[in-house]
Amino acid sequence: MFAIAITLLILEVHLSGQGGVSLARQLAHAWPSYIGYVISFVTIGIMWANHHSMFRLIDRSTHGLVVANLLLLLCVSFVPFPTKVLAEHLPVAGPDQRTAVLFFSGTYVVIAIFYNLLWRVAATGHRLIAAGCEEEADKITRAFRFGVPGYAIATLLTFVAVPASLAVDAALAVYYLAPRRASSQADVP
Amino acid sequence: MFAIAITLLILEVHLSGQGGVSLARQLAHAWPSYIGYVISFVTIGIMWANHHSMFRLIDRSTHGLVVANLLLLLCVSFVPFPTKVLAEHLPVAGPDQRTAVLFFSGTYVVIAIFYNLLWRVAATGHRLIAAGCEEEADKITRAFRFGVPGYAIATLLTFVAVPASLAVDAALAVYYLAPRRASSQADVP
Amino acid sequence: MFAIAITLLILEVHLSGQGGVSLARQLAHAWPSYIGYVISFVTIGIMWANHHSMFRLIDRSTHGLVVANLLLLLCVSFVPFPTKVLAEHLPVAGPDQRTAVLFFSGTYVVIAIFYNLLWRVAATGHRLIAAGCEEEADKITRAFRFGVPGYAIATLLTFVAVPASLAVDAALAVYYLAPRRASSQADVP
Amino acid sequence: MFAIAITLLILEVHLSGQGGVSLARQLAHAWPSYIGYVISFVTIGIMWANHHSMFRLIDRSTHGLVVANLLLLLCVSFVPFPTKVLAEHLPVAGPDQRTAVLFFSGTYVVIAIFYNLLWRVAATGHRLIAAGCEEEADKITRAFRFGVPGYAIATLLTFVAVPASLAVDAALAVYYLAPRRASSQADVP
Repeated sequence: MFAIAITLLILEVHLSGQGGVSLARQLAHAWPSYIGYVISFVTIGIMWANHHSMFRLIDRSTHGLVVANLLLLLCVSFVPFPTKVLAEHLPVAGPDQRTAVLFFSGTYVVIAIFYNLLWRVAATGHRLIAAGCEEEADKITRAFRFGVPGYAIATLLTFVAVPASLAVDAALAVYYLAPRRASSQADVP
Repeated sequence: MFAIAITLLILEVHLSGQGGVSLARQLAHAWPSYIGYVISFVTIGIMWANHHSMFRLIDRSTHGLVVANLLLLLCVSFVPFPTKVLAEHLPVAGPDQRTAVLFFSGTYVVIAIFYNLLWRVAATGHRLIAAGCEEEADKITRAFRFGVPGYAIATLLTFVAVPASLAVDAALAVYYLAPRRASSQADVP
Repeated sequence: MFAIAITLLILEVHLSGQGGVSLARQLAHAWPSYIGYVISFVTIGIMWANHHSMFRLIDRSTHGLVVANLLLLLCVSFVPFPTKVLAEHLPVAGPDQRTAVLFFSGTYVVIAIFYNLLWRVAATGHRLIAAGCEEEADKITRAFRFGVPGYAIATLLTFVAVPASLAVDAALAVYYLAPRRASSQADVP
Repeated sequence: MFAIAITLLILEVHLSGQGGVSLARQLAHAWPSYIGYVISFVTIGIMWANHHSMFRLIDRSTHGLVVANLLLLLCVSFVPFPTKVLAEHLPVAGPDQRTAVLFFSGTYVVIAIFYNLLWRVAATGHRLIAAGCEEEADKITRAFRFGVPGYAIATLLTFVAVPASLAVDAALAVYYLAPRRASSQADVP
């Protein structure tokens, strides 16, 4: 699922294809597509690795877990759409640019909320956590603390300065990429 | 297969892209796409989880089972098309709106028929059911009883009132999402 | 791979979208898309199940097998393209219709050739066949005998009568769907 | 991931669809799409098989390996875009053709760099290599030596002669397809 969503992102990278413009210039003008592609790829990629790590610690399944997981996947699969909207409206400053960044960052707020919901269903009181993995689970719980407020700050920053908002999105990706004990033993996806 | 079909749905979500309209308004006007995306995602997602549960109870395979499964997948893979048609024609009331909803709900009638066919091939007389799983299989048989008539009612309601038809489609999704004994032990997809 | 190629087929099903034509009529006029979708889905689906059966009998791997498999996948992944071309040109009789059917059937001739090549690499002298599976392998060898000439006849029939060509394509799909001992124990994909 | 990227390539194969031109001629004129499709399919296909072989020799995972793998996948998923650009600009000689081939070959230079980076993270000092597989790992290290300079030569050749550049890309694909001890036991993907 994560693998498919991540690979579909490239289908939304297009050239504008104006007549009379050299291909080199068209490729250069497509930079917002590349930014959107990289941010979305890395963000979903990290979620994929972490989702994998989380489920290694879970050894029971409940109906609530299945539903929470389905809702998370619903949001993750949605990402190619705001990424395309961002790429189309990032070049020209103005209200549409702001709307596109709001939509992009807002999507990650919603994803972070469902991500936390899924983890809470599994980890509250270590309900579904495999015996002996409680400590590792608590580390994940602590690391996830920053997701929702982080993406919410990125979204609110859109009203102040659009580049600052995207910088926070990128910083969050780097933060979750940085080595932590809990994820350092993640299987390769 | 289910994972791929579900992830492709987002590729059919588009903005109409009229010139001179703000992006915020375009995003708001795309609401039928979001409704179609969510209904189809949740419906296929539930089928995915249930398909998974069903095959955990089956421990033999016959040629008939392979063919029935292929026919079901043929219909499930078709879903992105009626979902796109629905999204394009839902906003404007009229005969085309009715046709789109008929086509959308009608697809789910056909899927429900093939779903039942597949399960009947496996579960009639517990032919292919693993020993000790007969009781759980009977619970699934009972739960499936409502699928075909439910989606058929949704389809017929289109002739009376279009929103009522979609409400029944959504209600069926919620019904199959609600916890039951048989599916409460479903593996996370 | 087969699962992905099969699911992508639906992305090539479009409505022509002429203004002033009712949706019901547009959906009816899209019949060549549905025919192409069903023939390609069932044909790739059968290949998928058979590919699966074949590899259950193979217990060693050589470099030649990897290369032959890659070449087969190259051709199978190509199928959505001739299917789209067929759907676009089937409605209007004429030389373009003939070309489209030739291209469609010709693709299956090439696939059948690579399919046989792959199986020959594995099964000639039972080189890579698991001990005890030789008899089952010979049955597959016999069943595959009809693939290349069958699709070649379908392709040549295009010059006589276009519908006869598609009828042979469909008949071959039914032939390979029909139960045989060798495939009757195929795992469900 | 590789399987998905490879299968999406066909979605970028289009006919230009000029009115008044026969379908046979349109299919013939699409030859650059076919060349791009085959080169990209075979190149990613070989990487897929080799990626598979590499991970069979790796029995530990570190955070660095996860990050290096994610970066490689980021580049591999990008391939359908330069492949499409190549197909669109290959037919007409001129600066845009050169740009397209530069972009195409340059992408493979970047992929080869990340491929080597990933392998270096795993194989330097046999850090993450399973006991007993050191010799096989060294063979892979030697085979990979030609990737980055090979694709770099292909890229630089673009400034001299465009067909020579593509010939080197194709030759590298054939070189990595040719049997070597290390890859001769690769599992079939």
